[in-house]
Amino acid sequence: MDAIVSNSGTAVSNWLADFESALAQRDIEAATALFADECYWRDLVSFTWNIKTVEGRSEIAALLDAVLEAVKPRHFLIDGEAAEADGVTEGWFSFETEAARGRGHIRLKDGTCWTLLTTMTELKGFEEPRGSARPKGAEHGVHPGRKTWLDHRREEAAKLGSETQPYCVVIGGGQGGIALGARLRRLGVPTIILEKNERGGDSWRKRYKSLCLHDPVWYDHLPYLPFPDHWPVFSPKDKIGDWLESYVSIMELNYWTSSEAISARHDAAKGEWAVEVLRDGKQLTLRPKQLILATGMSGIANMPDYPGMDKFKGEQHHSSKHPGGEAYKGKKAVVIGSNNSAHDICADLWEHGADVTMVQRSSTHIARSDTLMDLALGGLYSEQAVANGITTDKADLIFASIPYRIMAELQKPIYAEMKQRDADFYARLEKAGFMLDFGEDDSGLFMKYLRRGSGYYIDVGASDLVADGKIRLKSGVSVKEIKEHSVVFSDGSELPADLIVYATGYGSMNGWAARLISQDIADKVGKCWGFGSGTKKDPRPFEGELRNMWKPTHQDGLWFHGGNLHQSRHYSLYLALQLKARMEGISTPVYGMGAVHHLH
Amino acid sequence: MDAIVSNSGTAVSNWLADFESALAQRDIEAATALFADECYWRDLVSFTWNIKTVEGRSEIAALLDAVLEAVKPRHFLIDGEAAEADGVTEGWFSFETEAARGRGHIRLKDGTCWTLLTTMTELKGFEEPRGSARPKGAEHGVHPGRKTWLDHRREEAAKLGSETQPYCVVIGGGQGGIALGARLRRLGVPTIILEKNERGGDSWRKRYKSLCLHDPVWYDHLPYLPFPDHWPVFSPKDKIGDWLESYVSIMELNYWTSSEAISARHDAAKGEWAVEVLRDGKQLTLRPKQLILATGMSGIANMPDYPGMDKFKGEQHHSSKHPGGEAYKGKKAVVIGSNNSAHDICADLWEHGADVTMVQRSSTHIARSDTLMDLALGGLYSEQAVANGITTDKADLIFASIPYRIMAELQKPIYAEMKQRDADFYARLEKAGFMLDFGEDDSGLFMKYLRRGSGYYIDVGASDLVADGKIRLKSGVSVKEIKEHSVVFSDGSELPADLIVYATGYGSMNGWAARLISQDIADKVGKCWGFGSGTKKDPRPFEGELRNMWKPTHQDGLWFHGGNLHQSRHYSLYLALQLKARMEGISTPVYGMGAVHHLH
Repeated sequence: MDAIVSNSGTAVSNWLADFESALAQRDIEAATALFADECYWRDLVSFTWNIKTVEGRSEIAALLDAVLEAVKPRHFLIDGEAAEADGVTEGWFSFETEAARGRGHIRLKDGTCWTLLTTMTELKGFEEPRGSARPKGAEHGVHPGRKTWLDHRREEAAKLGSETQPYCVVIGGGQGGIALGARLRRLGVPTIILEKNERGGDSWRKRYKSLCLHDPVWYDHLPYLPFPDHWPVFSPKDKIGDWLESYVSIMELNYWTSSEAISARHDAAKGEWAVEVLRDGKQLTLRPKQLILATGMSGIANMPDYPGMDKFKGEQHHSSKHPGGEAYKGKKAVVIGSNNSAHDICADLWEHGADVTMVQRSSTHIARSDTLMDLALGGLYSEQAVANGITTDKADLIFASIPYRIMAELQKPIYAEMKQRDADFYARLEKAGFMLDFGEDDSGLFMKYLRRGSGYYIDVGASDLVADGKIRLKSGVSVKEIKEHSVVFSDGSELPADLIVYATGYGSMNGWAARLISQDIADKVGKCWGFGSGTKKDPRPFEGELRNMWKPTHQDGLWFHGGNLHQSRHYSLYLALQLKARMEGISTPVYGMGAVHHLH
Repeated sequence: MDAIVSNSGTAVSNWLADFESALAQRDIEAATALFADECYWRDLVSFTWNIKTVEGRSEIAALLDAVLEAVKPRHFLIDGEAAEADGVTEGWFSFETEAARGRGHIRLKDGTCWTLLTTMTELKGFEEPRGSARPKGAEHGVHPGRKTWLDHRREEAAKLGSETQPYCVVIGGGQGGIALGARLRRLGVPTIILEKNERGGDSWRKRYKSLCLHDPVWYDHLPYLPFPDHWPVFSPKDKIGDWLESYVSIMELNYWTSSEAISARHDAAKGEWAVEVLRDGKQLTLRPKQLILATGMSGIANMPDYPGMDKFKGEQHHSSKHPGGEAYKGKKAVVIGSNNSAHDICADLWEHGADVTMVQRSSTHIARSDTLMDLALGGLYSEQAVANGITTDKADLIFASIPYRIMAELQKPIYAEMKQRDADFYARLEKAGFMLDFGEDDSGLFMKYLRRGSGYYIDVGASDLVADGKIRLKSGVSVKEIKEHSVVFSDGSELPADLIVYATGYGSMNGWAARLISQDIADKVGKCWGFGSGTKKDPRPFEGELRNMWKPTHQDGLWFHGGNLHQSRHYSLYLALQLKARMEGISTPVYGMGAVHHLH
């Protein structure tokens, strides 16, 4: 162990000891004195029963003042070796509260805390039965009337939702619902997942034919069962669909296929929901205590409402219904939109011999896949990261340890380097008329995703087609009207079309809640996603966490779950722990509920 | 690093350096001088293209003399830390040959080699595409006419076996065929697996209802995709069935369900097989170069041929067809046999209210599950072993490092302790008339398994029922005759019966080869399994390895694969490497083919 590492370890250990001692004495002044002038504390459920970041000493003092008595934090212990670089000392630690065990990460500057992350890992007395606590499987001994695993499993599946009611209903059986369902299963929380398609994984299978994940395999593991090490870097959609289907079987989820939630209403007196479900065409009512909307960022297609759409004689559909380019050889295709789906679909149409025009209505952030993997994800999610001992858990926590307030600043150098490295590429795109951006503040792709969930394309080839003019570009216009055989633009120009694909994105989660439950409750809950950066589609005020995601909302018993595979994996843990705690009657006082913000 | 570890490391490193230098100079005398008087070298494919153990300096000299020129072994390097205990120094190492990379394990006594294990891990130039060599999935760039993963997968599945021929046909889609199929898939060897049942995993699902694996989860992992850490210790049969089915999908095996091989014949001139297959009732011919019989130890039910069986008016079936006890409440059941299946079935019948008699024809080895796990398996396959850093791979290699010649001696103390620990239990069983053994030489369960694959019960509760007289026991007799409503025994006694279950084991793999191919070829190949210990059902001469298992046989292109989940996992690697090498035209001179031994 060299001296720097050793000193770092001492610094972290000392800080933790001082912090614990101040907390034990309820000496909030002493505790806050351990933080730097600029400081952030991000808590995932362990102190706040919320997903919450507080900033500066006074917010930290307020948090401690509110929660210390109930939370009773203790046993802060450094975990592994600390390290120092560029004046910042980083370390891991474990800790306990009255109700739970947790894991944390800290960054010190000059011995005081700059960033603190505290996360709940398990509830005491309700640990997942894994490792040496796993079930025995065979019940040894003699048990007249014994039931086998299959008997139990079939009986549970037959009764749940009729004779017995699930504690949770999860609407949406994509990666989000499945990851959450797996965690709830391991925690023993009776849950039904509703999936409108016929098979698990169909939400991927049914999308356009050429779709592959744009995120790499190391970023995409589900909980408990990592992909085998030959899994492709970018999973083809049907392969990830099959994986999800197998995962549902392996994890023994109560996963109802061909099941659609048609309405839900909350009975405050009973503290339960009545969820009307069409299962295999038959209507029934589920009465869970908790309702989780896991239809995610791509739940409801957002169809535009252009004049004349009803008169169009060709074929038109939303990108989510696009079957792939095979049937369109020699056809004139117009794709409205310029983000991921639009690019993928344009390239696929072009490869199949269609005459394709992409309609770019506003600027788009383009990041070449290889460059993005190398610069933005490689440190945490790559073969190299695995070789460096950065497990998926560790990567997720490092990722989570950066407060959203400062994340943009930390992201900017990545995209500055990207701009430089791929300068020729960007120059070619601009020459072709493509409107580029790197986010309003040049903070790039991941910030766009967190702020608005859209506005970018991870280039896997389509941009070359755009730059080369093979995919024609209609840029800086909006659609004015659809005619029988053409699209008319705001600049008065007109494009003949046999096919129009509306790659116009997806409706909001709040909009889905309005449709499923009521506008009143959707308004009561407010906007989902975005953290209030004050950039396009992410209005202020600043909240510091994604609004309404994976944490309590202003509607009792209503939760939102979603995001990419990384988020579905990581945040499903905290959502599952919150649900389990409520099922077990553990006190869960929520600190720092966000204010409600309506959509603009 | 303490002194003992350091000295051990030096001892192993020095030995390896001396060995490499002797081999490089083709100085066989110097090489053999590095071995102790009593010495064993077990090679899994890397030096011998065989599974072979040689004993003593002269056999080692003969092996080296035969193989050195072609194998060109080199780059022997210690791997990790060595350790010393009870005068034996153990260490791991890596090495290379002309064709392959390998991993080895060595035990030194006084600086000379007592046991040496050399194993092939991968063929140079034909490494499995994993980790950083994994496929990209999405093909970035522009590819007119591009096919998706699903297109490729469907096209392959549609063509293989009709337009194109597989290199390998594996008969039997249980854990053996599946594990081998997964390895061949990763190695790019076109393979079809034939499974007679409707679904993957049915070979487990269709067995008696109460069946659970008798081996614990740590022993049972398949290659590449370990069970998640909540998996039960002893998998219920339907759960392992579902797992196998998911595994087949995840690994993209060409797995033909409802497909039965009805005959196979070898065309020596063409070097290929003609395998007649009934697939979904339709006959077709497959023409692979290699045919692997993976029906395993429990492939064909062994039905006895007692006089009068045809006249029995009740229900009678082999244990493999037994549905479980539910339908037999109040019935008189006679179970012929006293091994695992017999015990499980008797207990299940008793639990369901049947009047059960177990017929013990010869003595049985009983090991209580908990004791067996603790004493025999715990060091390598347990939660504790995992915590100690013993990965599945490492456990398999440690297990493989013990030559069969000395294994019995090393096993005896385990069973001596078992006898003592469970003395009261055994006394109760004997008092009830149960005939016990611990193997002819008291070497216990695993040796019985290796020698004859039968003769034991891992007790999970049934033995208490026997000891308590709840399962009635008819011991030390054979069956003389079956009458309309009873079973008559060699001692003249007679038992009324509504149900007879023949828990009389399974036919030999050689017998299956005779049935599928021809008696001539079965005779040419000889006995499978057993290593010639000279104990019951395992006649001499001593061969030192399981006969015909996972290695070349005397019939070109015919291979046998089988065993429990541990063996299916571990030995499938060596079988797959042998097959891949042949497909790629790598020279594979086989050293030390075993002599042929017919069944007695």
